[in-house]
Amino acid sequence: MEKNYFIGIDLGGTKINGILMDSRCNILSKYMIYTKASKGEKAVLNRIMLVIDNLINYSKKNIKDIKCIGIGAPGPLNRKTGIILNTPNLPFKNFNIIETIKKIYNIPVVLDNDANVAVLGEYIFGSGKGYKNLIYITVSTGVGAGAIINGKIYRGSTSNALEIGHMTIMPKGPKCNCGNYGCLEALASGTSMEKLANKLVKKKHINTSLKKYNNITTYEIFNEAKNGDIISNEIIDSALEFLGIGISNIITIFNPEAVIIGGGITNIGDRLFDIVKREVKKRCFENLYNNCSIIPSKLGKDSGAIGAATLALMES
Amino acid sequence: MEKNYFIGIDLGGTKINGILMDSRCNILSKYMIYTKASKGEKAVLNRIMLVIDNLINYSKKNIKDIKCIGIGAPGPLNRKTGIILNTPNLPFKNFNIIETIKKIYNIPVVLDNDANVAVLGEYIFGSGKGYKNLIYITVSTGVGAGAIINGKIYRGSTSNALEIGHMTIMPKGPKCNCGNYGCLEALASGTSMEKLANKLVKKKHINTSLKKYNNITTYEIFNEAKNGDIISNEIIDSALEFLGIGISNIITIFNPEAVIIGGGITNIGDRLFDIVKREVKKRCFENLYNNCSIIPSKLGKDSGAIGAATLALMES
Repeated sequence: MEKNYFIGIDLGGTKINGILMDSRCNILSKYMIYTKASKGEKAVLNRIMLVIDNLINYSKKNIKDIKCIGIGAPGPLNRKTGIILNTPNLPFKNFNIIETIKKIYNIPVVLDNDANVAVLGEYIFGSGKGYKNLIYITVSTGVGAGAIINGKIYRGSTSNALEIGHMTIMPKGPKCNCGNYGCLEALASGTSMEKLANKLVKKKHINTSLKKYNNITTYEIFNEAKNGDIISNEIIDSALEFLGIGISNIITIFNPEAVIIGGGITNIGDRLFDIVKREVKKRCFENLYNNCSIIPSKLGKDSGAIGAATLALMES
Repeated sequence: MEKNYFIGIDLGGTKINGILMDSRCNILSKYMIYTKASKGEKAVLNRIMLVIDNLINYSKKNIKDIKCIGIGAPGPLNRKTGIILNTPNLPFKNFNIIETIKKIYNIPVVLDNDANVAVLGEYIFGSGKGYKNLIYITVSTGVGAGAIINGKIYRGSTSNALEIGHMTIMPKGPKCNCGNYGCLEALASGTSMEKLANKLVKKKHINTSLKKYNNITTYEIFNEAKNGDIISNEIIDSALEFLGIGISNIITIFNPEAVIIGGGITNIGDRLFDIVKREVKKRCFENLYNNCSIIPSKLGKDSGAIGAATLALMES
């Protein structure tokens, strides 16, 4: 019997999301659990195995039906050797995830950066279908991106390309977690909105319903914005304008056919795309703006897991 | 007899620079004249022909020895059809330069964007030799760039990629000639330095030897800087810092093996590279900075002409 099934694992700092699919992206099973990164290397490895085992059981398959397992993980990592180098949000330090999983299941395993697998998934099965040059941007806690150039993932010389969250768009702007000032991520991410909100509520002259919370996360900001709070809405609009500036830079540099936006921020919906497109139109050459679609991710929360399975499909 | 010679024409708004070379980049003759763009389409075409004829005569060759002519021109252009679309600094409007030159000389002609041919020249014969992913940045009146990605020129979906001069690096910064605010070109080009100088000399409280000139160009700024004028030096340093920010963004996005800097600004020498590298080190991830050489163009003023001849060599 031919092995025609693929497992994709999106290994995040908060959640592990897995899918099992056939070669046409028909999904037979899905399974998501918390990573529990603080419990350490062995515990997280066990949770990855739990995801793999459950995916196989739920789809009534056998490990022998699986041709390859793909894993998407936050960088830095070495995709060739399979080593996760030193990711802040995971307990793996110089840990060879490919060799480890391969030994357990005795089938091929492939690894890549989480944004790279996501852009691949969107390119083959999602919003990026039919385009040759496209950028996938994910905005949640941070800002990440992946690129398809001439039909292939572009990784750069040390596999760290597309760190667009750390492009400077305001040289004397707020400090970023990376140490630099005025990075896109410090102006247009979940983290940046939370920081700004927690700073603003301390100011006496500012009137906002956010003041009733002790610790403000994006959840409270979005809720109060819906309830009509002006400051919450301004925090969101400011982040979206900066995101628009970042995307206009990406379009100016890559002249892509499409920019796909994914991540938690897409929950904002139309308003996100309205503000981003307005900013891009204002800042980009007409020819670049007119020839680039700015669209939502089709695979949504599963773009990483489907992308990882797509990588497994393509590299096996 | 085999045709083994190539002509490269760098068609600029100010000068037309031509070279005739063999397939190993041995240059047999060079010829440069003013474009005299204001004299119109026919006059400029005649001047291009004068360059081609002189290159052939000076190298004691015959038109039959030339295998192909390459032309690099400022965009926007359609390299496939050979049409120069609507370049502000040239009199050609929707003019088919390939067909025209081909008819006159009866040999193949190829065309590309000026920054694309320059990066190709540096990649094959200049500072970019041996690298697979590299960016060439030229800073003179404006800021332009070209990219080699996985060993090939990257052009984007409508051949307008790498317009890095129009990436926003200060959202509320000075207005750029393109209409946007805070573009790299509005902060780190010959034009931006001249604008800033002409603004500063009007301020009563500012003390600078630039005040003795009626109209200040980069020539006066560099001269007065050499003579120790503090304001002139600050204008230059500020432009170089912004250039460093632009280059750190490019490195963050492309993760290239090398960034090659060309154009008039390289006359500044070591100080340019010191300031740019300092800024890049401050703003880029260590892994990106440590793995990217920031180096001067080897082909210098001839990068465009040699690059155009290289294009002729590669596409014929």
